Amino acid sequence: MSHSIKIVGTGLLGTSLGLALARHGITAGLVNQSKANLRLAIEYGAGEEFQGDPELVIVCVPPDITAEKVIEQLEMHPGAIVTDVASVKSDIAAQVAAGSEHAELYVGSHPMAGREKGGVGSARADLFFARPWVITPTEHNPQVAVNRIRDLALQLGALPSVMSPDAHDKAVAAVSHLPQLLASALAARLTGVADTEISLAGQGLRDTARIAASDPGLWVQILSQNASNVAPLIGDLATELNELHSSLSDIEASGALAKIHSLLERGNEGVARIPGKHGGKYVDYHQMTVVIDDSPGALASLLTFIGDVGVNLEDLKLEHSPGAQIGLVEIQIIPSAAEHLSEQLTANGWRLV
Amino acid sequence: MSHSIKIVGTGLLGTSLGLALARHGITAGLVNQSKANLRLAIEYGAGEEFQGDPELVIVCVPPDITAEKVIEQLEMHPGAIVTDVASVKSDIAAQVAAGSEHAELYVGSHPMAGREKGGVGSARADLFFARPWVITPTEHNPQVAVNRIRDLALQLGALPSVMSPDAHDKAVAAVSHLPQLLASALAARLTGVADTEISLAGQGLRDTARIAASDPGLWVQILSQNASNVAPLIGDLATELNELHSSLSDIEASGALAKIHSLLERGNEGVARIPGKHGGKYVDYHQMTVVIDDSPGALASLLTFIGDVGVNLEDLKLEHSPGAQIGLVEIQIIPSAAEHLSEQLTANGWRLV
Repeated sequence: MSHSIKIVGTGLLGTSLGLALARHGITAGLVNQSKANLRLAIEYGAGEEFQGDPELVIVCVPPDITAEKVIEQLEMHPGAIVTDVASVKSDIAAQVAAGSEHAELYVGSHPMAGREKGGVGSARADLFFARPWVITPTEHNPQVAVNRIRDLALQLGALPSVMSPDAHDKAVAAVSHLPQLLASALAARLTGVADTEISLAGQGLRDTARIAASDPGLWVQILSQNASNVAPLIGDLATELNELHSSLSDIEASGALAKIHSLLERGNEGVARIPGKHGGKYVDYHQMTVVIDDSPGALASLLTFIGDVGVNLEDLKLEHSPGAQIGLVEIQIIPSAAEHLSEQLTANGWRLV
Repeated sequence: MSHSIKIVGTGLLGTSLGLALARHGITAGLVNQSKANLRLAIEYGAGEEFQGDPELVIVCVPPDITAEKVIEQLEMHPGAIVTDVASVKSDIAAQVAAGSEHAELYVGSHPMAGREKGGVGSARADLFFARPWVITPTEHNPQVAVNRIRDLALQLGALPSVMSPDAHDKAVAAVSHLPQLLASALAARLTGVADTEISLAGQGLRDTARIAASDPGLWVQILSQNASNVAPLIGDLATELNELHSSLSDIEASGALAKIHSLLERGNEGVARIPGKHGGKYVDYHQMTVVIDDSPGALASLLTFIGDVGVNLEDLKLEHSPGAQIGLVEIQIIPSAAEHLSEQLTANGWRLV
């Protein structure tokens, strides 16, 4: 058979795309440099070994060889629309424009659906479900090509939006690449901290440093392609921290405390702008904490109870309890439900806090 | 009646201490500058208006007036042991040593149990349960006084540890104060970012910036008392970011990518050192993601199912889905349970990913 969709590269994203398409009855044609990985992806159910004449090619290879592979595919399959999934867009768009006579059929895209772990084994059919999928056309793309990528995103349950490659790269520098570098820089300082000091770490440090566990090899490629957008942000932050260092080093100086207070206040404002659940702004939910023991079903039994009394959880977090075999469950609910739920929990023997 | 335990200050910590002691049948004597707040704490059940001759005084006032209040209590109640709950210890210990002839009866302590929101209304009887409670004696304290505070911590379910005031302040600078300032500095940059850019934010940014929502007034007091420990850490980080800025600004230069790669790798190492659930190191749990709809009981029904098949959740996170009325539940389990759970979920119609 001839495959209408060709996926180049069967890592996390390529394999996930194949699995997602298979759910819609579409058998993708797969190619991969490593034959062993290709076979693995096929065994996973992501598609078949590619043959034929595709109408759409999705290039899912590491960022630093994406442009080269896109150009190769444009030459190999005249008339086919080619897209990619790399997380930086301008550099690749420029390389393709310079390197191919068919650049108008390349539409860049960025499904924002990575995971801390890569590889075939981490692939999931629902990886793109309910996640943003940015499409980054240029003025040379025919509308039909842009629509084809948007339809692909919608078919896989993603939330497509359209931006220029430059606007996309500027946005991800601020909301993704800058936090990555800060988390890494913070976590890197922990390599020199004594065990007794680390033992006092709480949820604040855990959350702030979490994404420092990401793959260095992949991130070097991403950052090198978006260096021009990330550099000024890091520069501004370094300046901010230098000023903070001055204020802290001479804390009795006039204005030192006011400067620190102002930074903390701006932090309050900034964090309030981050979209929360379902894309909305953070609502001021009511938070309560319930103690459960650390056994199978304990959390379930709590949540069953909460569901039974008709209250919807807006968010939930398990608190880690250093040294204790219990769990603290932090739940967020709408304020109007707080009194009702609190009464019901207490009346039924839950340890509420 | 005469109260054997006196609590000075009925904010979040003082009121929570009173509530916790009440659970153990101890009625605390309360004092507070604002009579309205005092009455509120009494109505909450945190104790009674103080009278008599206490054996223990717990000072729970803002950090910048803690030393003054400790000294006042040492003079007012000769022979009573006095402790406090402030989150920076050396400065207060020095002020008390200089300002009181009874400083040997002051034992500093720091129950690490704050919340992003303060005040009587946020108080909880279980605030200290399963949390670290650092006791910071000096060489002048009799052992009996130190033991009294340790017993208090144990009685309230906290996990006491003993450190010198200096060692404590150095530790919290690294694991608490530095992350706070970084999160605030990161979030502060978001005030200038366009809405369309912010809309691409994901869980990474949300986690990294979360604690930027903390109270600026309280944090200015904390940071000003620990400025000498925090300043060099911020200075080191500013230097690291300056070097990163240089590497990113001239990304083609020899060694630029290697430097960035090295930072990311050190970040991997550092984050792996943060204690996870129950104080252990992060185990490499198996992660899977399940789709649920956003209705009361949906999460409970999933977790009931997981409990029913005998699998213990190590961690759980609700993923926010921008624009979609569904939830993605990320669960962490021990690797050996992964295949069993995955089969059971799929066989019973759960949308697994």
